[in-house]
Amino acid sequence: MDFLTGVKKKETREISDLIREAKAGERVKVNGAVHTIRDMGTVAFVILRKREGLLQCVYERGNADFRLKDIKEAAAIEVEGILMENEKAPNKIEIRMEKVVIFSMPKGEMMPLPIARWKLGTSLEAKLNYRSISLRNIRERAKFRIQEGLTRAFRDFLYSQGFTEIHTPKIGAKGAEGGANIFKLEYFHRPAVLAQSPQFYKQMMVGVFDRVFETAPVFRAEKHNTKRHLNEYTSLDFEMGYIDGFEDVMAMETGYLQYAMRLLEREYGKELQILDITLPETDKIPAVRFSGIKEKVSERYGHQMKNPFDLEPEEEQLISRYAKEEWDSDFVFVTHYPSKKRPFYAMDDPEDTRYTLSFDLLFRGMEITTGGQRIHDYQMLTDKIAARGMEADGMEQYLTTFKHGMPPHGGLGIGLERLTMKLVGEDNVRETTLFPRDLSRLEP
Amino acid sequence: MDFLTGVKKKETREISDLIREAKAGERVKVNGAVHTIRDMGTVAFVILRKREGLLQCVYERGNADFRLKDIKEAAAIEVEGILMENEKAPNKIEIRMEKVVIFSMPKGEMMPLPIARWKLGTSLEAKLNYRSISLRNIRERAKFRIQEGLTRAFRDFLYSQGFTEIHTPKIGAKGAEGGANIFKLEYFHRPAVLAQSPQFYKQMMVGVFDRVFETAPVFRAEKHNTKRHLNEYTSLDFEMGYIDGFEDVMAMETGYLQYAMRLLEREYGKELQILDITLPETDKIPAVRFSGIKEKVSERYGHQMKNPFDLEPEEEQLISRYAKEEWDSDFVFVTHYPSKKRPFYAMDDPEDTRYTLSFDLLFRGMEITTGGQRIHDYQMLTDKIAARGMEADGMEQYLTTFKHGMPPHGGLGIGLERLTMKLVGEDNVRETTLFPRDLSRLEP
Repeated sequence: MDFLTGVKKKETREISDLIREAKAGERVKVNGAVHTIRDMGTVAFVILRKREGLLQCVYERGNADFRLKDIKEAAAIEVEGILMENEKAPNKIEIRMEKVVIFSMPKGEMMPLPIARWKLGTSLEAKLNYRSISLRNIRERAKFRIQEGLTRAFRDFLYSQGFTEIHTPKIGAKGAEGGANIFKLEYFHRPAVLAQSPQFYKQMMVGVFDRVFETAPVFRAEKHNTKRHLNEYTSLDFEMGYIDGFEDVMAMETGYLQYAMRLLEREYGKELQILDITLPETDKIPAVRFSGIKEKVSERYGHQMKNPFDLEPEEEQLISRYAKEEWDSDFVFVTHYPSKKRPFYAMDDPEDTRYTLSFDLLFRGMEITTGGQRIHDYQMLTDKIAARGMEADGMEQYLTTFKHGMPPHGGLGIGLERLTMKLVGEDNVRETTLFPRDLSRLEP
Repeated sequence: MDFLTGVKKKETREISDLIREAKAGERVKVNGAVHTIRDMGTVAFVILRKREGLLQCVYERGNADFRLKDIKEAAAIEVEGILMENEKAPNKIEIRMEKVVIFSMPKGEMMPLPIARWKLGTSLEAKLNYRSISLRNIRERAKFRIQEGLTRAFRDFLYSQGFTEIHTPKIGAKGAEGGANIFKLEYFHRPAVLAQSPQFYKQMMVGVFDRVFETAPVFRAEKHNTKRHLNEYTSLDFEMGYIDGFEDVMAMETGYLQYAMRLLEREYGKELQILDITLPETDKIPAVRFSGIKEKVSERYGHQMKNPFDLEPEEEQLISRYAKEEWDSDFVFVTHYPSKKRPFYAMDDPEDTRYTLSFDLLFRGMEITTGGQRIHDYQMLTDKIAARGMEADGMEQYLTTFKHGMPPHGGLGIGLERLTMKLVGEDNVRETTLFPRDLSRLEP
């Protein structure tokens, strides 16, 4: 009989541990993947890839009890040796190799991608086809550490603001937004759909927890093949009750962004440096009205408006440009979208019901958030459903919630991959998606 | 032009804020849902439900500028009044009501469930049919706060242990475990499936980040209609590289459970009290071998073994009973499951290949985790696929990963709803699922 008593400290060391606690001349053990080998003749540099970065190991024949050719790039190994200081090495430390244990060797085939290069420099297609290999590149990997920071900040900030985390079902009888962009499946001989958003559920849970959030996948069967669309993505969603107006929702998002930038600065500094990221200012984010700003950018940049009810991608870029020029801001809220382009549950502006109390957040030329105040009155909600000629079928439980009292509330959804993309300076959302799903891609 | 500058402090107060900062005699504003009204004639108690608990408001005709009948149970309101101390009230405070603002009134229908009762006392069926109402009950709601704590602890503990959070796709070309229990859908005229687990993806990402985790939905088209099965559930998954053995995985899980219990104690004390939960000991968790323990419990409790290769639910209960009797432990690891009941990627025990280096964790009579060491050698993996007569079709990228070097690794998946169920003392997993999906339930 054995007992498990928790995590034990390992004999093998991590990079931060070596920097913080080990001394030059000390014998240490480390493990990692052989990222690259640079054989200089009398000496060779064996660079280990570890979760915290790269670690330089130095091979000299006289010091080591193994041959250099015993190890190969891509092997997973354990190294024993003497820790040394070296100004030129990553983190200014290196290990003089004495012994090695080989956990696994590559199977003799060439690596499909040159992962040890600073910039991978291959096509997006190749990167995605060999995703588990391309991400071994230090820069490619760093993007997803930044993505982690953004998700983590979202949760931690909202916990601190009294939100409760929820898990809502992804298989359901009906989609929240309606429309044709829904994946269908068979659920034990009944028709079912994949959730386009947790919208109905998070609203229902506002009546329970007042403030809720979820970080989970959503599914959109959109036939767009663009740089900004995915058919499955991670949505950072929240919904909050007892708001004074939809400005409270924008203020909460601003608070999140401020918190996220501080967290990245504090705990993801290495990745910011690797990717050469300058974090955007979030102290104050301008908010402009949909109807006014369309005219303004059309005039200033000589753009021909086509659709008066929505923003084209080009207009999003121009509004961002305007915000940068006018207020030196990388973010800009666009408010009061036309009612006919917003879902039925959006609250119309009582001062002009052609518009809604809603907003998008643009970041460096692209919409990364849609949000707004929702209708909380049962009668108003059912009237709007009727006015739009919609079926209430499948929405019974959603509507019942409103019969039994609901506070004024609003919320938003942030596209995690888009936010990451714009922050790290990529121009295709697939670059910041681990395993993208699009019109043609279902694997790996 | 307006600017958003972050979250502003509201005039309305939360319960913790009133306890901490407000003084008796102070005029305060609060909002909330009218949980119940107890009209005693000369005085009435209006109990507000807020996210932090219940708040007693006292209505006396002379003090208030509104009539008691202006408000109703289930209304969402704002109250202005004088804060008073009262030993008998929740949190020992109450508010003498002076003014009220009504945000929304219920539509005159009876509440379908008596949510203000301490124990709801209705059938599970009724609770689930009116989920957005039943969860307004304080005890029902508290279960999901505990669930939040368990998820939050999982992430925070793993961040502290150097894990990276990942988001893997839920739509794919092929399931990780194979078999018939897969939901199928059409993906732009191609056949696709919903992920049964993030298994392949998290293993592939071990080669990138060394240690990864994900907290996300998984989908199982199992035709079981039991108290312990769901067709969609939240899986807490991790996978870690450079392990010395599968004991490292069990040690990490033990560390998580220890961390989780401390977090619950520290930050979810109110909910533990509401649900009258005694947290289990996690200092040391016994581990017993599959083959030995089956015989032992069969002997001690006179149980007739049926399937020598797996544990029946009844055997899980008996092993838990044994662990309680022998070691006073609510948890017990069962190790070395037979190879034929484990998936192809499970590492066989080199000392006896009929068994695997794998484990389940039982908690109070039920399996809540499956985990173990995985095969990391390409040849061993492809040999096992061949020996099982499986098709490698659709696994190309998974297998390619192993061609290019992989460290020894292992991991696990924890069923969040089951863990919550056993912790809060429920006996049906639907009790601790916000919106369960089972053979007959696709709504709400």
